[in-house]
Amino acid sequence: MKYNLANRMNFVSASEVREILKVTERPEVLSFAGGLPAPELFPHEELSKHAAALLHEEGVRTLQYATTEGYAPLREWIKDRLNNYWGMHIESLDNILITSGSQSGLDLTSKLFVDQDDLIWTEAPTYMAALAAFRMCGAKFAEMQCDDDGVIIEGLEDRLKQRKPKCVYVITNFQNPSGRTWSMERRRLFMELMTKYEVPVIEDNAYYEVCFDKIEHCSLSHFDTKGLVISLGSFSKVLCPGLRVAWLTGDKELVRKLVILKQATDLQTPLLNQMIIHRYLMNNDFNERLKLISDIYKERRDAMISELEAHAPKEVRFTRPSGGMFVWLELPEDIDSHKLLERCLTHNVAVVPGDAFYSVTKKHNMARINFSNLPPEKVRYGVRVLCNSIKEEMEAVRNR
Amino acid sequence: MKYNLANRMNFVSASEVREILKVTERPEVLSFAGGLPAPELFPHEELSKHAAALLHEEGVRTLQYATTEGYAPLREWIKDRLNNYWGMHIESLDNILITSGSQSGLDLTSKLFVDQDDLIWTEAPTYMAALAAFRMCGAKFAEMQCDDDGVIIEGLEDRLKQRKPKCVYVITNFQNPSGRTWSMERRRLFMELMTKYEVPVIEDNAYYEVCFDKIEHCSLSHFDTKGLVISLGSFSKVLCPGLRVAWLTGDKELVRKLVILKQATDLQTPLLNQMIIHRYLMNNDFNERLKLISDIYKERRDAMISELEAHAPKEVRFTRPSGGMFVWLELPEDIDSHKLLERCLTHNVAVVPGDAFYSVTKKHNMARINFSNLPPEKVRYGVRVLCNSIKEEMEAVRNR
Repeated sequence: MKYNLANRMNFVSASEVREILKVTERPEVLSFAGGLPAPELFPHEELSKHAAALLHEEGVRTLQYATTEGYAPLREWIKDRLNNYWGMHIESLDNILITSGSQSGLDLTSKLFVDQDDLIWTEAPTYMAALAAFRMCGAKFAEMQCDDDGVIIEGLEDRLKQRKPKCVYVITNFQNPSGRTWSMERRRLFMELMTKYEVPVIEDNAYYEVCFDKIEHCSLSHFDTKGLVISLGSFSKVLCPGLRVAWLTGDKELVRKLVILKQATDLQTPLLNQMIIHRYLMNNDFNERLKLISDIYKERRDAMISELEAHAPKEVRFTRPSGGMFVWLELPEDIDSHKLLERCLTHNVAVVPGDAFYSVTKKHNMARINFSNLPPEKVRYGVRVLCNSIKEEMEAVRNR
Repeated sequence: MKYNLANRMNFVSASEVREILKVTERPEVLSFAGGLPAPELFPHEELSKHAAALLHEEGVRTLQYATTEGYAPLREWIKDRLNNYWGMHIESLDNILITSGSQSGLDLTSKLFVDQDDLIWTEAPTYMAALAAFRMCGAKFAEMQCDDDGVIIEGLEDRLKQRKPKCVYVITNFQNPSGRTWSMERRRLFMELMTKYEVPVIEDNAYYEVCFDKIEHCSLSHFDTKGLVISLGSFSKVLCPGLRVAWLTGDKELVRKLVILKQATDLQTPLLNQMIIHRYLMNNDFNERLKLISDIYKERRDAMISELEAHAPKEVRFTRPSGGMFVWLELPEDIDSHKLLERCLTHNVAVVPGDAFYSVTKKHNMARINFSNLPPEKVRYGVRVLCNSIKEEMEAVRNR
């Protein structure tokens, strides 16, 4: 059968990284390729008790249809958290929508803003699954260049004068894939421009609370005077991803429209899952949990960075993240990251080639490595193997 | 702030029925307006045990990221069930995708087929939230007229010759809102036409297993020789809606593409929720559960029909469903169902005006009434009040 499908199917393809991950799933492979939070930190026994108690005590209402907006007590908790720890100024629950994971938040914001051939600005590099969500609505992309302080402001205003994007998509904190965090000054300058030109900003804060170093950061909405910022947050990295509970915040008018879009998309996020998380938050110290995660991730990050410092060829550059789950490698210009992956795999180590993380310029000499899902000794061993593989590949290229 | 939103936002509006439901939520109102399964039948104690045991025994893997396709053992159960009870011929798990409720299946199939201004054929009346999903991709609609045996075949081929729809959307079993079930002959003839003209068929089977009378029915895929049917099913009506677990089946090539769309839409349906349902199915007799539901719903349906037969003015027509949750009222031409709702509410009874259930011709003299969520004595009382309200409204119209 030759099916007559929607045009978007010409541009929507299987996540290249997901395909690579399948190759790297062999048990003998030590993988830096994935993006998984450390499962040994999931509070499954605690959640087991809460799930059973909720179904028993609250009974059938946990299993019935529920409101699209989400479980009000959980939204209340989120409101307080964001106002007290994220530098946000959320007035009411009408500014908050519970979503089925942040990916669903990206799908909904894409539906809210994007028509066929609309232009979206992204960082270079950026989170590839966001690109997939925007592409489903027909988005075209332009990139904003970045350095270690975030998006480079210079030149942006000229571009805004030429053609305003429909919206911008940014990950300002511990970015996936680069691990970078924007400086406060860059945030302020960026929002000045977006405000002046009234460009909606989709801010992806999946990693906001996974923070190891004392570092100043806040939501871009802190600098938002016109209700332009839609900010996405998630329990996936700080509690567990499998329950699929996340949220978005924004101007009431926009959130009301996003609720309508969610009605037509998945009706509601499972109430039981929202209630389990809320009950966990009521019965446990969330800041203590964050400290546990950050202590363990910091140790892994330190292992990765110190080993890179000791063994990476001097031509290799890498980021030094203060949070999140990823380090970003910049290899010499003549190294192809897919070739490097092949070579690494012969030594049973895996990385993700970086080209998939660009919306426009597919840089071939970048790679993402994840540190959250391996104990420090494995991180160290794996980085040494990786560094050897890089040296071998550099040698091979030189002799070609 | 004047936001520059996507064009679809001009056509996507809050579900009118959801808005009506808010009015009818006053505790003193006896409501036939909703579409809720009977919560007292949800096996919450059973599910409480399974949830706790899963999180305890299976540990952190229940909470980690999981595959987009869904939990394989659950897909295996669905495959066997559909092949043995639905007249389907599903070859492998590659034909099945778990979705986050059937609404999410509608969102995904809409993305698969629909470009701006593409034509979709629906029944008249049809399920309104499906229209919302298709509208998000820019669909336009045309209606197929129906009688008590399903879609009227006559005239369809001429229309196919003039302009083929991109796909058709049908609910062949115990339809929401009409309660009607297609005859086997209509199914066969309909699929002959769709096959000849190679039109993809989205079949919504949310009510398939909620069946009270001995009645022959099957999936349209039974008559599908070209892989045209995508069939949606759900645990919402037979187990509970709150866990948001449903599925779709179809040709492998289409399901593979739907998996890619789901990656970009919500990544995966919560694994824990899928595992809870699977464990319930492994430890309980599903057919016995269906019998429990159907016995109770049948009693409520009988109460509704017998009371309508006794008290409805002879000018009122109504369907006699063999399953599902709804009866469809056709009022005299000069009665406006919104006016009737107003009048009913003064007597603390609620119905849903039927106009929202049409994709094109908004018939003003239809109403949907639900019988699944009220005990028989309340159904009887409510129908008597409703019939009186209809008489009052007919009287008022005559005197206007």
